[in-house]
Amino acid sequence: MTAELYQQIDFILEIDKLKRVNRRSYLLDGSRTENTAEHSWHVAVAAMLLAPDDGSIDIFRVIKMLLVHDIVEIDAGDTFLYDTAGTLIKAAQEQKAADRLFTMLPPRQAQELRSLWDEFEERSTPDAKFARGLDRLMPLLHNYYTQGKTWREHDVTADKVLAQNSIINDASQELWRLARRLIDDAVDKGWLQKEAERPQ
Amino acid sequence: MTAELYQQIDFILEIDKLKRVNRRSYLLDGSRTENTAEHSWHVAVAAMLLAPDDGSIDIFRVIKMLLVHDIVEIDAGDTFLYDTAGTLIKAAQEQKAADRLFTMLPPRQAQELRSLWDEFEERSTPDAKFARGLDRLMPLLHNYYTQGKTWREHDVTADKVLAQNSIINDASQELWRLARRLIDDAVDKGWLQKEAERPQ
Repeated sequence: MTAELYQQIDFILEIDKLKRVNRRSYLLDGSRTENTAEHSWHVAVAAMLLAPDDGSIDIFRVIKMLLVHDIVEIDAGDTFLYDTAGTLIKAAQEQKAADRLFTMLPPRQAQELRSLWDEFEERSTPDAKFARGLDRLMPLLHNYYTQGKTWREHDVTADKVLAQNSIINDASQELWRLARRLIDDAVDKGWLQKEAERPQ
Repeated sequence: MTAELYQQIDFILEIDKLKRVNRRSYLLDGSRTENTAEHSWHVAVAAMLLAPDDGSIDIFRVIKMLLVHDIVEIDAGDTFLYDTAGTLIKAAQEQKAADRLFTMLPPRQAQELRSLWDEFEERSTPDAKFARGLDRLMPLLHNYYTQGKTWREHDVTADKVLAQNSIINDASQELWRLARRLIDDAVDKGWLQKEAERPQ
């Protein structure tokens, strides 16, 4: 057996740890929060179904990007989208994690996966914009369909949800219309506060 | 928004249930059994890394196949590979589940996913053979690297493991050599009984 194969198997074993990284989003039945491995599967299937078929994106690249986009969380952990302080230190930790994890692979694959991950982070191409938009849409769906469970637990307000999710518009105007409708409806139903209450 | 989009979103919400279907395999740290959604992610990434790049298979099709191959377990549940009685009734339940789940989607996508799933089940093409081989390799890795935890719990013997996993050879001779080496070593280490003890 080749040394390449051993490197690949070591990497495959290593990423099992992603199943133990917990996110803030709840399963739709509210029974527990989801982990990053199952989220990665869910968003990849969603992308496969929601991708435009007009040739504007390369859906195979998008799916590969989504399958590996959160692997760095094995070292860096999941940072809650609305945790501003956490977001500031997150980038450096994730770069370090990417350095360690992707270089476990044979050079050709290390380079391919690192480059897909960089592209996702930079959101600089149509493929990355679509992938990032989908990655935002998923927790929005989870929140809406659990009556705002995570939003309520963390006092997240509609202005922040709108600001953080507006990049969905770069993925698809239709998905952004859907997202806005869900956000508006969540406010109407009292699952999402319109904005932070000002201290009296 | 189109009726198509609503169908797609309904399907995406429905398959969240796969995160609550438990398999017999343990996470590599032995802390809990894995669920089918995170397994689907893991095997898709493994396929992406282990696929031959000689043009003999279409890796995009293989990944799509693996992302949806176990969705029927939402209705049919996971059947343990070594549960012979369960396997006999499994096929009919899974066909029924496939009928219900895939037809939630717009016709074009319902047809594509159903056809990928049928191909996976029939193991009739190089893509399906590779996908099925990887799907067998994963629990073997999980078993070996948890010192045969699931094998020991269910008194699985080496002859059965060899018989059930020999289809890995159709995916890749190199992966089958790896699999055999792990099985032999597990027997040597006492993690896997050679064969069932005969009653005296």
